[in-house]
Order: sequence, then C-alpha cells, then structure tokens
Amino acid sequence: MTAARRVYLDNSATTPVDPRVLSAMLPFLTEKFGNASSVHFFGQEARAAVDRARREIASLISAKPNEIVLLSGGTEANNLAVRGLCESAEAHGRHIITTEIEHPSTRGICEAMEKRGWEITRLPVYDDGIVRVEDVRNAIRTDTVLISVMLANNEIGTIQPVEEIGALVRDERESGNSHLWLHTDAVQAAGRIPVNVEALSCDLLSLSAHKIYAPKGVGALYIRRGVRILPQTVGGHQERERRAGTESVASEVAFGEAARLARLEMQERIEHTRKLRDRFESGVVERIGDIVFNGERDKRLPHLSNISFRFIEGEGLLINLDLQGVAVSTGSACSSGSLEPSPVIRALGRNDELARGSIRFSFGKDNTDEDVDYVLEVLPRAVENLRRLSPLYQKAMAERACAIEHVNVV
Amino acid sequence: MTAARRVYLDNSATTPVDPRVLSAMLPFLTEKFGNASSVHFFGQEARAAVDRARREIASLISAKPNEIVLLSGGTEANNLAVRGLCESAEAHGRHIITTEIEHPSTRGICEAMEKRGWEITRLPVYDDGIVRVEDVRNAIRTDTVLISVMLANNEIGTIQPVEEIGALVRDERESGNSHLWLHTDAVQAAGRIPVNVEALSCDLLSLSAHKIYAPKGVGALYIRRGVRILPQTVGGHQERERRAGTESVASEVAFGEAARLARLEMQERIEHTRKLRDRFESGVVERIGDIVFNGERDKRLPHLSNISFRFIEGEGLLINLDLQGVAVSTGSACSSGSLEPSPVIRALGRNDELARGSIRFSFGKDNTDEDVDYVLEVLPRAVENLRRLSPLYQKAMAERACAIEHVNVV
Repeated sequence: MTAARRVYLDNSATTPVDPRVLSAMLPFLTEKFGNASSVHFFGQEARAAVDRARREIASLISAKPNEIVLLSGGTEANNLAVRGLCESAEAHGRHIITTEIEHPSTRGICEAMEKRGWEITRLPVYDDGIVRVEDVRNAIRTDTVLISVMLANNEIGTIQPVEEIGALVRDERESGNSHLWLHTDAVQAAGRIPVNVEALSCDLLSLSAHKIYAPKGVGALYIRRGVRILPQTVGGHQERERRAGTESVASEVAFGEAARLARLEMQERIEHTRKLRDRFESGVVERIGDIVFNGERDKRLPHLSNISFRFIEGEGLLINLDLQGVAVSTGSACSSGSLEPSPVIRALGRNDELARGSIRFSFGKDNTDEDVDYVLEVLPRAVENLRRLSPLYQKAMAERACAIEHVNVV
Repeated sequence: MTAARRVYLDNSATTPVDPRVLSAMLPFLTEKFGNASSVHFFGQEARAAVDRARREIASLISAKPNEIVLLSGGTEANNLAVRGLCESAEAHGRHIITTEIEHPSTRGICEAMEKRGWEITRLPVYDDGIVRVEDVRNAIRTDTVLISVMLANNEIGTIQPVEEIGALVRDERESGNSHLWLHTDAVQAAGRIPVNVEALSCDLLSLSAHKIYAPKGVGALYIRRGVRILPQTVGGHQERERRAGTESVASEVAFGEAARLARLEMQERIEHTRKLRDRFESGVVERIGDIVFNGERDKRLPHLSNISFRFIEGEGLLINLDLQGVAVSTGSACSSGSLEPSPVIRALGRNDELARGSIRFSFGKDNTDEDVDYVLEVLPRAVENLRRLSPLYQKAMAERACAIEHVNVV
C-alpha cells in the first residue's frame, strides 16, 4: 500500500541526513579513503578531517576537542560512561544514582552493573516527568561514585535539572567528596537546545550523530579533562587510548558537519519545530477528546509531543497512521519489540491503559505546516475509528451517557 | 609537497570504497533514512535493507544470517568474541590459548582478561610465522575455554592452520570436553581468500567491512548457532539482544554489497593481486640486496608482501616513499604511534634491526601494473639513499670489502 503523502514525525528516533552533511562526508567515501591511523598522505588527510570533526563536535557543547571520544553511537556512549567510570572508580564505592526514565542503554548498563554487585538508586520523576534535585541530594551516600541523569528524555522530552545537579556535585566536591562524578545523556538534547558542559558541570556527556541529521552508527562521549574511565574497547591507540578501533572517518566527518550546522542553526530550528509542535498540539486539543499530555509542557524539548489517547493502544494507532503515511512511535525505537508498556510513561504514575495508549510525535527541521495539517486531518479520524472498535470506549461512553441522563433527571 | 603520482599499497590498513558499494549505500544516506528498529514504513524499509545485508555477509563465509551480529568494526568483533565468550563460559575455566601474532585488538582484550585473573597461553609462530597445531593441542587444559587464532596475519599475511585447529576442537568435544570454543579473526582473510565457517569449524569469527571496499566503522561477529556470549553493549533489543544500539543502516548496507562483490569476484581479485604482488617481489629481489621476506611465502594472503630491509628504519623508508606518493606501512595501522618494533616480526625470531626495518606492501583490486612499475622505480632509490646515510650499512660494507680483499689475498 502506498500512502498519499509521507510525513515523518519520528525525528527523536532518527533524522534524515542533511544534504550538506552528505556533501561533507562524500569525499571520505570516495577519493579520501585513508585510515586515520596510517602515517602516510592518505592517513594524514583522514586524520586532519577527523580532527576538524572533533573540534566541531566539541564546539557544539563548549568542550575541548581532546575531551571528545568518538564512538559508534549513543548506546556505546552511555555504556562507556557508566561502566567505564564505575570500573575506574570502583575502589571508592559501588553505588550509582540514576532515574526511572533513562534511555534503555543507560538502564541496561546499570542493570548489568547491578548484576555485578553494584547498588543502583533509581529516582522517581513524579507526574511531570522531572527528577527532583532534592531527591538526588538525599540519595548521595559516601559510596556513591556516579550520578547519571539524562539531560532531556527521549520519550516525553522533559528537560531535567542537570545544571542544578551539577552544582550539587560541585558542592559535594568542595566539601571533600572528590569521588563523585556526573554523567548526562544528551543524545536527545544536543542540537535541539543549547548544551554547555561548563554550565552543566558534568564530567561525562553522551552524544549521537543521527539525532542531528548525520548518519547512524557514530556518536561521542565527552570526558572532562582529568576524569578517568576504564576503556571498554581495547587494542589500537585510537582516541588517545580511550577507544580502540579504526576511526569511522566518513561518519565522523558527517557528525562534525552536523554539529557545526546544529550550532549555527540552533535558534532557527528551535523556533521552527516549536511552532509546528505547538500548532499540532492546539489542533489535537481542538479535535480529540480524552487525551493526556505526557511530561511537563513548559520544560520540554521544543520538537516533541507525547500524548496518551485514552481507550486505545498506541501500537494500533501507530500502524493506522503508518498506513496513511504518518510515521510516529510509541516510545523509544530501542524498545521496539518489547510488549511492556513504556516504563517512562509508567514512571509518570500513569496506569497501563494510558501508558499503552501513548504516542510520540517528534518534529524536525524539515517538517512543514502542511505536514501538521495532514496529521491533524488523519489523526482524529484514526483515533475515532480505533475507539469505535474499543469495548472500553463503548463502556465509558455508555457510562457517561448514563451520568448525563442522571444529571438531567435530577 | 605534491607527489607526481599516488600509489596506494596499504590495502591491509584500509581499502577505498568501491563505487558500486557507495551506490548501494547512498539511498540510505538520503531518502531511506529510517531507524531499522522503528515500526513504521521508514523503519521497515531500513530493516529490510539490513536483513539483506546480513544475508550477504553470512553468505561470504557460508554462515546463516542469524549467526551474524553487526558491530562497529573488527576491533569490537575481536573484543566481543574474547570477552563475551569468556564471561559467558567463566564457570568452566579461565584459560585462553592464543598466539604471539594476533591483532592488537585480540592481544589487548586478552591482556584485559589477564588483568582480571585469566591465564593466557601465547603460542609461538616460529620463523615462518605459522602456529603449530601440535602446540595448540599441547596447550589445551581442562580449564581452557577459548582458543583464539587469527585466520591470516595482518602484517605478514601468513595463513594459520585454523581448519586443523577446528578439527582438534571437534575431537576434544567428541571426547567429552564440551566447554572449549574456537574464535578466529578473519578480518584480513575474508574477501581475500575463501572463508567457510563450516570448513573451519570455528564458533566465532571476526569480520571488518573496510578491508573489503566498504566504509570504516562497521564489522561483524559470526556466532555459531547455540554458542552463548555475554553481550558487551547493552540497552535496546537490536541484533537479537547480542549488541544494542541503533543499526548503522547505510554502513551495513555497504558492508552487505561489499561482501556480495567480494564473493562474486574473489577468484579474480586473488589472481590480480597475486600477480601484482609476485611481480613486485621479483622486481625487489632483482634490484635490492640485503632484504628478508617475512612470513612463509607459500602460505600467505595473495595481496601482501612484508619485507625487512637491512640497515634502515622502516619508518624512514615509509616517509621517504610517502614523499614520492607511495603509501605503505610498517605494521598494523592500529599500532601507529607505538615506538616498539613490531611484535609480529619479533615473533618470527628476527632481531630488532630487522623488525624495525620491515615494511608491509599490500595490494588491492584497483592497483595496476603501472603502480608496481612506479614502486619498483622509487623503492630501490629510497632504500639506497637511506642506507647511504646509515652508519650500520657503512660498517657492514667496509667489512664485506675487507672480507673480499682477504679472499683475494688468500
């Protein structure tokens, strides 16, 4: 089946490669094919390009180039941050503080550490999807070595108070607790809101290229100068001994160019996606009842909207929309295949029905007003059709009719 | 300085992307940009492409598609094979058998396991650069869980008797030792000589895309059905729970196409590179004295020649050749930056002088007779110039003159 129109509203899952990014990387998929670790001309040409890319990536988050370790993606970045830091800091304690709404890659690596005897404190985020600094403070123990709190959530877009947590970690250090480090997963935030490692006072920060219009398969971990991690991929001397393996030159060049463009066009992208998102949300409120917005609306990424549609399954709605050419998601793409309701939506205190009925709409720089118009045309119909088939909806409607009748009678 | 001509003879470090491979991947860097883990149209389009690529990669080594785990490269493959298998098999013993000439990524991960209390037996390779099956047999203990022997060496190209080691492991299993597994690093061999996981009887086999005319930053680990490894990168459900992280779609598609071409053009490539290599070696023997070929010449990859030039430093010769546009290497690109003489050449029993004076020339499918002619023109001059500056050479020549005079006098 071919849809009349294709509207991609899943920019939190991945973004199209910007044609300018493709242009920047193409020479490294053709004549400039050297191994950046080779000593000769071909190698040095590649090396120089990787160095330029590293500077651009550093610049996006106000870091220094040698604080950037290039990796295969955001998952590797979160894994390396948590395991690499913990294995290096083990002598000082085996306790990690994190939240209930981290990305599966942070959640997964924390579970792996737990299996090895580490203790994990998972802080709640309440109904607004935001962790409390006070809770972080109260959770700190003498054996806590890592606090890992994402900068912005991937499903509901809520921006976490990482800057305040950073200030807290600074205070702790000033009072003599020098064995406490802060990691933040900025995969969804970087390029979408300003991210500054100095302002955040974080020690480790994860990045992914394919969320900012570069190809999939490349990412980075910011490691503050002086912070030690135990490398997880070993062999060659690449990345200053912090991550072995032949440099993924073309993809890293693409990442660099994407970071440069994200930095230069940040404000424009924020305004553009926020405008689309807000118009979309107003339209939804006008046209569809029995919905719940997930995540504090005033502290969200500008491009994202997560809505629970009562009485229906998100999966069914996703498929229905897909048949009409609209691409959205029910949660993290990394969770696809899981039949469990989203742990992020559950963490907001929503029941299973609302967690299962949630859909993430994520806008990108290439979406247009026409895209929003099209979705506002097909979405209400899709929701209505699905609800008409839902026994829960029938029951609720009958009850409401009854209640109204009752009111009328009284 | 711009060289008159550029001749790339470092195809063991990396290869140029084949234009057909680039064509195959380009749609996935433009309109087909979906996340392969997304449920919608864009995701399924990407998923289908990754599946096709996986089938092609499997086909190159006669494996089944679901035995292929896609990764960020050969280093990750070797790391995952050794650590993943060992962590999973730990209950059965903590002993690994490997060789003295493995790639830095295998060597490195074995050292990491050693630091965690594992015992490593590193077998010698003698002056021909080939491990003995008998030595492997003698090294097997009741607590040995892994044998890791590369299929072909990256510096000298010697092909190891992995098939015979595989038969040995099969015998061990038949005599009741079911807790012994075989890993082989086929990064240099795959696409250059036929590789068949059934013939090898290996349990794990590492592959890298950029050695077979695909981009850098993607590789794979073959894991025989039923063999369990502990995943090292965790989070999402990708790669059947064996390697989390958003699929690197475009690069994986490229890898698939490169594997397909390597399979179809294998014989042609073998003959072409062998012809160039052999002509090169004959020319070198005619024109340059005091050289030693490294590695058994009859059991080598067809595209590679490793020669020690007495009295000079390989690094100096490499730079001299580079100034004339010829790209070669002194060893593994992953070892660049190390000042130590190559451990591989040292393992052949060569002294430091010969180890430091070694150069790897590695031919590719795109090299021509003219490339060989050009190198045969500049190489003898470069060697002569460097030797003229070498005090060791002066001394040796003086001694030889003396000896000749002495003979004449007698």
